[in-house]
Amino acid sequence: MSQFFGDMTPLTFNPDADGPAFRHYNPEEVVLGKKMKDHLRFAVAYWHSFAWPGGDPFGGQTFDRPWFGETMEGARLKAEVAFEMFQILGAPYFCFHDADIRPEGADFAESRRNFEEIIDIFGEKMSQTGVGLLWGTANLFSHRRFMSGAATNPDPDVFAWSAATVKTCLDATHKLGGENYVLWGGREGYETLLNTDMGAELDHMGRFLSMVVDYKHKIGFKGTILIEPKPQEPTKHQYDYDVATVYSNLQRFGLEKEVKLNIEQGHAILAGHSFEHELALARELGVLGSIDMNRNDYQSGWDTDQFPNNVPEVALAYYEILKAGGFETGGTNFDSKLRRQSLDPSDLIEAHAGAMDVCARGLKAAAKMLEDDALEAERRARYAGWETPEAQAMLGSDLESITERVLAEGINPEPRSGRQEKLENIVNRYV
Amino acid sequence: MSQFFGDMTPLTFNPDADGPAFRHYNPEEVVLGKKMKDHLRFAVAYWHSFAWPGGDPFGGQTFDRPWFGETMEGARLKAEVAFEMFQILGAPYFCFHDADIRPEGADFAESRRNFEEIIDIFGEKMSQTGVGLLWGTANLFSHRRFMSGAATNPDPDVFAWSAATVKTCLDATHKLGGENYVLWGGREGYETLLNTDMGAELDHMGRFLSMVVDYKHKIGFKGTILIEPKPQEPTKHQYDYDVATVYSNLQRFGLEKEVKLNIEQGHAILAGHSFEHELALARELGVLGSIDMNRNDYQSGWDTDQFPNNVPEVALAYYEILKAGGFETGGTNFDSKLRRQSLDPSDLIEAHAGAMDVCARGLKAAAKMLEDDALEAERRARYAGWETPEAQAMLGSDLESITERVLAEGINPEPRSGRQEKLENIVNRYV
Amino acid sequence: MSQFFGDMTPLTFNPDADGPAFRHYNPEEVVLGKKMKDHLRFAVAYWHSFAWPGGDPFGGQTFDRPWFGETMEGARLKAEVAFEMFQILGAPYFCFHDADIRPEGADFAESRRNFEEIIDIFGEKMSQTGVGLLWGTANLFSHRRFMSGAATNPDPDVFAWSAATVKTCLDATHKLGGENYVLWGGREGYETLLNTDMGAELDHMGRFLSMVVDYKHKIGFKGTILIEPKPQEPTKHQYDYDVATVYSNLQRFGLEKEVKLNIEQGHAILAGHSFEHELALARELGVLGSIDMNRNDYQSGWDTDQFPNNVPEVALAYYEILKAGGFETGGTNFDSKLRRQSLDPSDLIEAHAGAMDVCARGLKAAAKMLEDDALEAERRARYAGWETPEAQAMLGSDLESITERVLAEGINPEPRSGRQEKLENIVNRYV
Amino acid sequence: MSQFFGDMTPLTFNPDADGPAFRHYNPEEVVLGKKMKDHLRFAVAYWHSFAWPGGDPFGGQTFDRPWFGETMEGARLKAEVAFEMFQILGAPYFCFHDADIRPEGADFAESRRNFEEIIDIFGEKMSQTGVGLLWGTANLFSHRRFMSGAATNPDPDVFAWSAATVKTCLDATHKLGGENYVLWGGREGYETLLNTDMGAELDHMGRFLSMVVDYKHKIGFKGTILIEPKPQEPTKHQYDYDVATVYSNLQRFGLEKEVKLNIEQGHAILAGHSFEHELALARELGVLGSIDMNRNDYQSGWDTDQFPNNVPEVALAYYEILKAGGFETGGTNFDSKLRRQSLDPSDLIEAHAGAMDVCARGLKAAAKMLEDDALEAERRARYAGWETPEAQAMLGSDLESITERVLAEGINPEPRSGRQEKLENIVNRYV
Repeated sequence: MSQFFGDMTPLTFNPDADGPAFRHYNPEEVVLGKKMKDHLRFAVAYWHSFAWPGGDPFGGQTFDRPWFGETMEGARLKAEVAFEMFQILGAPYFCFHDADIRPEGADFAESRRNFEEIIDIFGEKMSQTGVGLLWGTANLFSHRRFMSGAATNPDPDVFAWSAATVKTCLDATHKLGGENYVLWGGREGYETLLNTDMGAELDHMGRFLSMVVDYKHKIGFKGTILIEPKPQEPTKHQYDYDVATVYSNLQRFGLEKEVKLNIEQGHAILAGHSFEHELALARELGVLGSIDMNRNDYQSGWDTDQFPNNVPEVALAYYEILKAGGFETGGTNFDSKLRRQSLDPSDLIEAHAGAMDVCARGLKAAAKMLEDDALEAERRARYAGWETPEAQAMLGSDLESITERVLAEGINPEPRSGRQEKLENIVNRYV
Repeated sequence: MSQFFGDMTPLTFNPDADGPAFRHYNPEEVVLGKKMKDHLRFAVAYWHSFAWPGGDPFGGQTFDRPWFGETMEGARLKAEVAFEMFQILGAPYFCFHDADIRPEGADFAESRRNFEEIIDIFGEKMSQTGVGLLWGTANLFSHRRFMSGAATNPDPDVFAWSAATVKTCLDATHKLGGENYVLWGGREGYETLLNTDMGAELDHMGRFLSMVVDYKHKIGFKGTILIEPKPQEPTKHQYDYDVATVYSNLQRFGLEKEVKLNIEQGHAILAGHSFEHELALARELGVLGSIDMNRNDYQSGWDTDQFPNNVPEVALAYYEILKAGGFETGGTNFDSKLRRQSLDPSDLIEAHAGAMDVCARGLKAAAKMLEDDALEAERRARYAGWETPEAQAMLGSDLESITERVLAEGINPEPRSGRQEKLENIVNRYV
Repeated sequence: MSQFFGDMTPLTFNPDADGPAFRHYNPEEVVLGKKMKDHLRFAVAYWHSFAWPGGDPFGGQTFDRPWFGETMEGARLKAEVAFEMFQILGAPYFCFHDADIRPEGADFAESRRNFEEIIDIFGEKMSQTGVGLLWGTANLFSHRRFMSGAATNPDPDVFAWSAATVKTCLDATHKLGGENYVLWGGREGYETLLNTDMGAELDHMGRFLSMVVDYKHKIGFKGTILIEPKPQEPTKHQYDYDVATVYSNLQRFGLEKEVKLNIEQGHAILAGHSFEHELALARELGVLGSIDMNRNDYQSGWDTDQFPNNVPEVALAYYEILKAGGFETGGTNFDSKLRRQSLDPSDLIEAHAGAMDVCARGLKAAAKMLEDDALEAERRARYAGWETPEAQAMLGSDLESITERVLAEGINPEPRSGRQEKLENIVNRYV
Repeated sequence: MSQFFGDMTPLTFNPDADGPAFRHYNPEEVVLGKKMKDHLRFAVAYWHSFAWPGGDPFGGQTFDRPWFGETMEGARLKAEVAFEMFQILGAPYFCFHDADIRPEGADFAESRRNFEEIIDIFGEKMSQTGVGLLWGTANLFSHRRFMSGAATNPDPDVFAWSAATVKTCLDATHKLGGENYVLWGGREGYETLLNTDMGAELDHMGRFLSMVVDYKHKIGFKGTILIEPKPQEPTKHQYDYDVATVYSNLQRFGLEKEVKLNIEQGHAILAGHSFEHELALARELGVLGSIDMNRNDYQSGWDTDQFPNNVPEVALAYYEILKAGGFETGGTNFDSKLRRQSLDPSDLIEAHAGAMDVCARGLKAAAKMLEDDALEAERRARYAGWETPEAQAMLGSDLESITERVLAEGINPEPRSGRQEKLENIVNRYV
């Protein structure tokens, strides 16, 4: 044991606890016929929890972790501590980028060797602890070689490097039994249109994604390929702007049946949407895959990746997910990026445990609303007119015959209340 | 003559004029082998110029126009004044909604009769003056019957009414020789997800659009069907959010070859994009149809629909359009929504004439940049690596063979400057 | 009885009710030694509830109220229905603008006569029902005469009209025993700097405010003069931007002891602040007067004036108010501006009752946090270093002696965790 | 010579140059009776140009400068290159933070020794080159000791360290003949209200500022103390939010005659204001000191610190400054933070030279507008009513007498056009 978290033992469900415990997340509790842990499928993110030094654009490292520094020894200690934390939290899953878990090597081959050594350690620890891998991913944005993009880089050598990196990470994800593989195109976009060939870049992006899908099938990876939309930051504009944009690209590339989405609350907000909008749209398009629960501060124009802390908002998110039938291979990842001032190991535990409780409360409220048909009955009634044979026939007709009917029947529709206030009050009875 | 504009005569091109004149817009001047008027294809919007009373959410009418009031007499006077203004401005085109030009009737039939009477007047005036119709459109958002949407209304009778209205407006546009027909779904969206069946609404929207396209072909209308994206306002969320979203929908409906886009600067800004981003994306997707040049105030979170007044920004917009080969059926519409305090007839003329000059300056700068290959040479050089047979072969290969090559060749890409500062300086030599 | 609300009877506190009732707001329940109704001091706003027709910038009237139309008969019926609603809600207070309650007259004198007739009706109804007036105010922004401002208008005649109007409204507020008088400068600001003499306008604004304070003292009005900050909308920039800006102006005018603030959640958001920031700042500056609880939609860039519906957010707001010792003359006004589609009388009741319950839940959570010293103990510990005599002495010293001490003592401070995650979790135990 | 910029020689004014040159900035050209260089008073910022490694929140260093690494040798080379660049640009001034120019020491004393050695080098180079110091400042935000603020830190030892640091930097600024001393409170603010004692922090901030002012007088520093407002980033909320907020604080601390403002375009934008608004407000309040010309990208919610590139916007900024009588001790600093992809030394030159030309164009346009009285004549006419004795008397009267006059004279004001469109067109004739 690393003793990083002192003598902290795994958290238990204990609504009346004084100290660290789950007050709402009870993994075995059955909700809508399924255990809470199987609904939520929590995954802990490696990057902000173990790899981020506490810096921001105006200041450097604040955290003081014994594993910092780009060495294999540090990487092994980091893995040790990470799995200790997964067990303290009882988290069923984790997620990682290649760059989170290994030191950068002098060249591709050395980076890969470093990576694969840690992957083997992960494999052992996963067997020992029962923790699974929700998804793996490649960091194609931090190193300076990616400064102008990965698949969309003006330099084809960067495309090549990126392709080789994704292959390596997908292999590792497959080896570890990962349930999904994620692509976040942090620098797939542009800083200025003046130096950008958007058409070529989008074509290259599509070709890259197709290769990933082909390779998945080739190696027999059964997990889901997921894209994570974000509108901007680090680049001025990212090509995977939001759910609608990604779906547009997928259709162009002919991949809308092959790829799903990993949707983050904070990214939805930055794109000008509510989180539930993005979830509902993905559900209607059949591409709702997984979620990143980290929220954004509503008054900050950059990604704050904070842990979720508002139960009413979280309830509306899980409501959309439950309406989609819940997660299949996806789950609830959350960064719990600590605040830069949160230096202590206990802050890491507080952030994750608090977030898990908030999600549990949201899930239970959402499940009860659905069980009670509290919102859906009203919704069905509002659209009931479309169930008539006349309305259905109209959908199959044309402008001329509709116009004739309007004139013949003197159709003159009267508006009816949308009852938003009543529906918001209903939600408030559940949260 | 109505005398609304006193004894004002048509504006002429006169760079040294003291009073109202064009200092930059010289319709007959040839730019890149085409007359300026044929590049810009200016159209004056009926709504803000002649139908808007000057109200905002915190105050009522400020303008005092002799044609206000919902009467046919008013509608005829309004048409009189409108065509006088088109001639003063030398504008080759105009645009209108049905609701701009006629009083609302007691029922559909009466509204249609009112509308058609004015359409006939328009026909005569167009013959007399040579002013053309850039596009017609239907207002499916102002009357209370549309409060919950038109094609996406929960009430199928509103769908019917909307279908009949679009048929009427498309007929009129066809009759007047209009070059395009526009759909702006101001209330196709939602106020709250809680009462919304997004899946059904999107399906109805798709069906509606297909009917419009079918009808266009049936009557032999050769113009372009255009959709105008906007992210929100009046609704919290509009389904035609931005270029990428509309293109996603068009693909789902199988209409991406049938429908193009009418892109507005102010709407781009509200969606978190630059105007040139939206234009470039539409061009790359093959759906760049027409533009609304009205800008948004950068510090206001609602649509201000002001006339364009920043030449460097306008130049970047026309640059993207020229790169697309210029307008085909589309053109430059602009609302020139006066400020609420701009009460005088002369303010209308100032707004339009100023905007036309700004557009002319932008066009000329953009044309010169293109002619000089000032930006494109740099761009081609940046992507030159992709022209090699090796790079092209890579695009046709797969992750495994690329990985082998990375290892075999020890590929280790070195970044190269993106030169954004230099390119911005180049632009500044032209504007 | 008007029968506008049918046979609806006053709502009661009934946590298990099926239909309309208060599930959390129990006016007589004692919280922190005071009745809930005396903490919250709810006031119903006249304007959005009774005067707003449901229009927005893209569409006209949707509501169909029997009192609409600018007649005295309508104004009397409106008052009738308003007081019926106050009684159904058990609201202890209401608020109004002059323009909400009376038809505009042909001139100042007629408008005043209309106004005073309704004020007399209000007086009678207030005696009969026990409903009090939280505050009165003048609408100096809707009529076209105010299009360029009221006190800051370039035309001194508008200043004069505005002064006479405020006198009339302050007289009426005094007569009705109002507890505050509010000024919201909706058009005190500018559309463009190009035509604005900001220095002169700010001077006139200061002079106007001084006159109001002087007149208050002259007539012996014991209530508080309140300014309501808002950053923009309707104007591009409003001079009463936010709490800090208003306090800056008050200091310049020498009125910081005479005037307090009426702070609205939605306006705080539009200014880039959290609501609790604005409340805390006003408290620290000694100018926290009253609140408008209407929230803004986080994804909309204009004022949506919706009723509060997020308990965790509302709890943080009341926490700041309780830390200030609670309201003195102020209270909780909220617009509950219905959504444009909420046509039914029952929507009005839903909006207000839901909001009152949300506020009650927030208040109770805030009170309990304060009672338990749950946050304050942590806060005191964080700043404990400042309680030492050494630290206090330093505050009274100078740069040189501090520098000497840093060198002599080798001061080299080590950071300590800010514990944000833990504190957010504590809040979540209460909401 | 370091050869960092190769054999580049000082840029000259040459409108027809092909390569690097000034096409508009002609330092000796007289504008409104003063040389252009004396109007603009350009200063080059040390930090982004020489100390920033090219990192952002999603990626590390991209720049490869021979002086990187925290050594004195690097610091000396950096100074060498910096002064070479100042001479290439012909920049009359520069600006720096302590942390930009020296390596951090093990303790305060060592950091100070490092700093003072470089200050002496600066002194020599300034004598040799004639480059002056526009302002010095202390970096009280990057090191982890400042993570919770400097003067507003919960730990009084950080206050002490900060006070000693400012003394050291003010001494150095004085020694080098600096014309101003700037305070930017990057972490004077909070991440969460939950752990913040805002009242105590504001008091400490005021006390700190007073000590700085006292010390300035004690050592006979004749320059101006400047505060640079910014609304947020790095903290969620910064106490020096915008011009109005800073002025409010200065009044509370009794320092409004002692301290002026250094206003940045990008910070104005982030606070929801136009740059010209902040400049005009500071001018009217008598606290316009100096400017940071770096702009923000309008679509990015964080500080991009780009060099100015839009002439019409820059012209409006200088217009407000010229109306204030121009700079006294202040000047035009600009960060020209390169884009992360702009790796080359020539990019540094492009960024600065381009910005200087844009500023020169803006200045000349602004000067001409002022000379021609093009906007001011219209403005005076708009407010002419206030010049009458009647209007002036009204300002000295009271609500009652004004009301009597409104009734007696039947005052009923008619609105007049604000002519915004015309004024915007006038501006466009100059830019």
